[in-house]
Order: sequence, then structure tokens, then C-alpha cells
Amino acid sequence: MTFEFDQAMALSAEDPGSFTGRLDGAWAIGPAVNGGVLMALAAAGLREVLGSGEVPHSDPLALSAYFLSAGAPGDIAVAADALRRGRTFSTGQAVLTQTGADGVPVERLRALATYGDLAASDQVHRSIEPPDLPDPDDCIATATARGKGPDAPPLMHRLDLRLDPATAGWAAGRPSGRGEMRGWIGFADGRVPDPVALLFFLDAMPPTSFDLGIGGWAPTLEFSGHVRGRPAPGRLRMQTRSHTLTGGLLEEDAWIWDSTGRLVAQSRQLCSVRIPESGPVIAAAGDR
Amino acid sequence: MTFEFDQAMALSAEDPGSFTGRLDGAWAIGPAVNGGVLMALAAAGLREVLGSGEVPHSDPLALSAYFLSAGAPGDIAVAADALRRGRTFSTGQAVLTQTGADGVPVERLRALATYGDLAASDQVHRSIEPPDLPDPDDCIATATARGKGPDAPPLMHRLDLRLDPATAGWAAGRPSGRGEMRGWIGFADGRVPDPVALLFFLDAMPPTSFDLGIGGWAPTLEFSGHVRGRPAPGRLRMQTRSHTLTGGLLEEDAWIWDSTGRLVAQSRQLCSVRIPESGPVIAAAGDR
Repeated sequence: MTFEFDQAMALSAEDPGSFTGRLDGAWAIGPAVNGGVLMALAAAGLREVLGSGEVPHSDPLALSAYFLSAGAPGDIAVAADALRRGRTFSTGQAVLTQTGADGVPVERLRALATYGDLAASDQVHRSIEPPDLPDPDDCIATATARGKGPDAPPLMHRLDLRLDPATAGWAAGRPSGRGEMRGWIGFADGRVPDPVALLFFLDAMPPTSFDLGIGGWAPTLEFSGHVRGRPAPGRLRMQTRSHTLTGGLLEEDAWIWDSTGRLVAQSRQLCSVRIPESGPVIAAAGDR
Repeated sequence: MTFEFDQAMALSAEDPGSFTGRLDGAWAIGPAVNGGVLMALAAAGLREVLGSGEVPHSDPLALSAYFLSAGAPGDIAVAADALRRGRTFSTGQAVLTQTGADGVPVERLRALATYGDLAASDQVHRSIEPPDLPDPDDCIATATARGKGPDAPPLMHRLDLRLDPATAGWAAGRPSGRGEMRGWIGFADGRVPDPVALLFFLDAMPPTSFDLGIGGWAPTLEFSGHVRGRPAPGRLRMQTRSHTLTGGLLEEDAWIWDSTGRLVAQSRQLCSVRIPESGPVIAAAGDR
């Protein structure tokens, strides 16, 4: 059996550092393919380049992606280059490009990333505790959460995402104003999570803007994620939270814990949102 | 009068998008020039490129920098390119290079950044409250904090940094184990802060690792900062905090508020630290 995520990450090598992949509409939200899939493709290309060589570094430790245009279903070119190969860390750049309708290449995403070996991260000196969550069966499965409403976007069917009902009121028209979501996350087909998949999951929850009463697309300008450990098999716990909404820009923090309760990834992204005329729903000032 | 930071940010245009600047040892910590100065130089170069053109975008909104080697006093080349120019946002890349002893160019830093117009960020819907701080005169001036110890690094004399005594115990050999610092920050010569200067300040405090009992250099692998508003003139309040220490990697979050109490910048960086044989000083698990 080939898992869906592995199909989505499949790259054919053209030249050294030059790959071709395919964006599948099965990972779309509206007309665009989910940005997390593009980031994970960038990470997969960089893993090929930085994971080979004299001192291979196969695990993404930090990845920053800037989104330049929306990815569409179809072929995509992934160019991955090493900028520096060190003893402990290596750093590279990935550029994702699709050919536009006029035959001209259009850049979708550019990413910088540092790779290393997460086996060296076994020693946890200090971490963040996972949130308490209801049993997965008592959570709201997002693929079917809309009930009689419009069908969930294709992306939601790739995920087994169960939102804590306490943070899912927005789906029933009752945003909490806290800008927060919590839940269990994994692949719908049971594929085991790995560091590249964590980068995908970090951007896979519905936007926190929904919980602030702000509907519509919340395009990511910038995303930076850190992978802090190789996840143990099993369901992941995830939390997202936004503190600051100014001038139509919202930051969204995300944390992921593995089935042992260890924090394995965290991220922050900056999104652009369209404030409704009635204003957002704000419960309280954010804290640190 | 020319302020020190403006001298440090001075760029001569060679070709379009190609600039030469100079790293001054006055901004050094040990043999290396402070990484925040390099990030600010990248931001200054990108401001030249993205701030001109049909729809100028002069304010950095998000900047991610990957540090490839340590900057040394001397000339530095700044190459800044626009990747995308949009109506509301423009995105670019900056590459900073110095010539090594053998005449070969060595890349110091690569950054991606999105620019826009922070005048559009006047509307604050939700933000984070600043910390309570003692009066600046009751805080510890870092330039003179070492007392009879070794002189403060040159960088500290460029800053007017006053640490809250509650978070400065590490300077007297009593790290709190919380991985936290708070204080007032500004330029020693009174230069007013602006968005590019905020990117510098975000990396200017002593590393939080000192407060975890981890001495020595804490090199930044990756830094991502968001500028959320143009700062009002006056002293800035700043806080840094680290939650997670695994496998010799530590993330450091920073927040800056202007004199009106508005959050104007925040960042996260991933640092590499050397754990002492006696282990770090850990007060409690981090929280979100």
C-alpha cells in the first residue's frame, strides 16, 4: 500500500538538486493546494540534497517558507540547493515553481531550512506540556463536521483531525473569540508521522481566524517551523493560537506533541485576513 | 549628528540590488559582529529594493534569516532581490557575503522577507499587554552590569539596555532557571527606533540560555521576526523567553512594546547551546 502523503511527496530527480513532483487536487482547499503540502515538498527536496554527501543531515530542524503565489493541481518543479554543509547542521534553499497558463514559470514558494540529526535530540531538558484533550471519539471529526453544510474541502479527507468541541464552536457559527484550536491529528490512512509530515501538520488545522469570527481564506505570508523531535507512532496532539491581530495581519502559533506527550514541533506563521465589517470576535487580550 | 545605527546601516549602491556596507567591531560580541546587525543590514538592503518601484513597500513585516557563518569586522556585500511585487505585499531575498582571508566570498546570512506599509497596521484589534517593569533607573544597565568582571562586549555600549533585576540574577551567578529576561531597550545615543531597528533589537538581549545556567555563545541557526507596528518614539519594553531545550537546541521568543505599550515586534529564533556537564538550571516546565 502506498500512503497518500508518500504519493504527494514523490519526487523524480531530473538533475542533482532538481526534482519534479505533482500537486494533487486531493490536497486542495478551494482552488489552491494546501500550503503545508508545498512546504513538505520543499522539505522533501532538501532532504534529498542535505541528506546525502559526506555528513548527511536528513532531518529538518527549522524551515521558513515564504508564499509567493497559490499552488494549483499539476506538475511542480522543486529546486533544492545546499548553502552550507557543516559538521552538525546543514542549511539549504528550496524554490518551488509551476508553469503558468502562458508557459511562463511562476514561483510558488521559497524556503530556507536547516537540517541535522534529530537522534541527537533525545535529551529533553525542558519542554511544554501537552493540552488535556477529550477522548478522540468525543471530539469533532472535521471531515464530517459541517453536517448539512457544504462538503469539507478535499484536504480534510486526507486528515484524521478531531477538534476538541470546546474549540470548535466556530464550525456552528459560535466563534469563541479566543483564536484557539486544539485537537488530535494524523493521516486518515494511518501513515505514521515523520519530521517532514510534522511540517505539513503544522499548517493543516483550520485557521484560528475562524475562531475570531473572521471567515474566508487566510493566506500565509510567512511560516517558520521547528521540528524538535522524531515523533513516536500514534496520534498527535496539536494546538493553535493567535494573540495579535493588527492591520489585517494575524500571527498563528502551533504546537504538536507526539503520542508520548513530547513536544515534537512548533511554528509561527503570519497570515493576512479580511476583517468583516461587523468586526472580529475578540474574547480578551492575548497573553504571552 | 550621525547616529551609530545609521552609520552601521549605511549602504553604497553598486548596481541595482547590489550594495556594499561595513561591519564595525563596535557592534561585536567576541570576535563576531552581532547577528542582529546583519539582519538589519539585510532589511536595509531589501528596503532599498522593495521600497522603490511602482508600488513601494518600505516596511519589513516578516523577515527570516539563516546564519551561515559569523560576520567579521570589515566590508560586507548585500545582494537584495525582489521575488514578487504585489499590491499589498512584496517579498524579497537578501544574501550577505564577506570575502574570506583566501579571497573567496563566504556567505554570512541569507534572508527572506515580506514588506508592506505599516501605516495600514494602525488598527489594533487584539494584542499582547506589555510586562510591568521597574523604573529604568531601578533596572540594571547591562553596559556596566559586570562590575569588576570583564568589560561588557562592545555591542552593549551601543545599547541603553536596562534589565529588570528580577531577571538579571544570572549576571551575578544566580540564573533563575526560568529562561526569561525583561527590560527597557533603546540606542545608547538616543536614536529613535524604526522598523529596521526593531529587527536589530529583537536579537540584542543577552541569550536566555544565561538564565538557564548555560554560558558561552548561543549561535542562532534561524531567526524569524514580525514587525507589527511603527514604534512611537521613546524607550521600548522587551521580553525574551525560552520554553523548550532539547538536544542542545533552544528556541528563544522575544516581544517588543513601544512607549505607548503597543506590541510592535515579536520573534522566535532557534539557537544551538552547549549544555554544561553539571546540566542546565531548570526552574519548571515551560508553558504556552
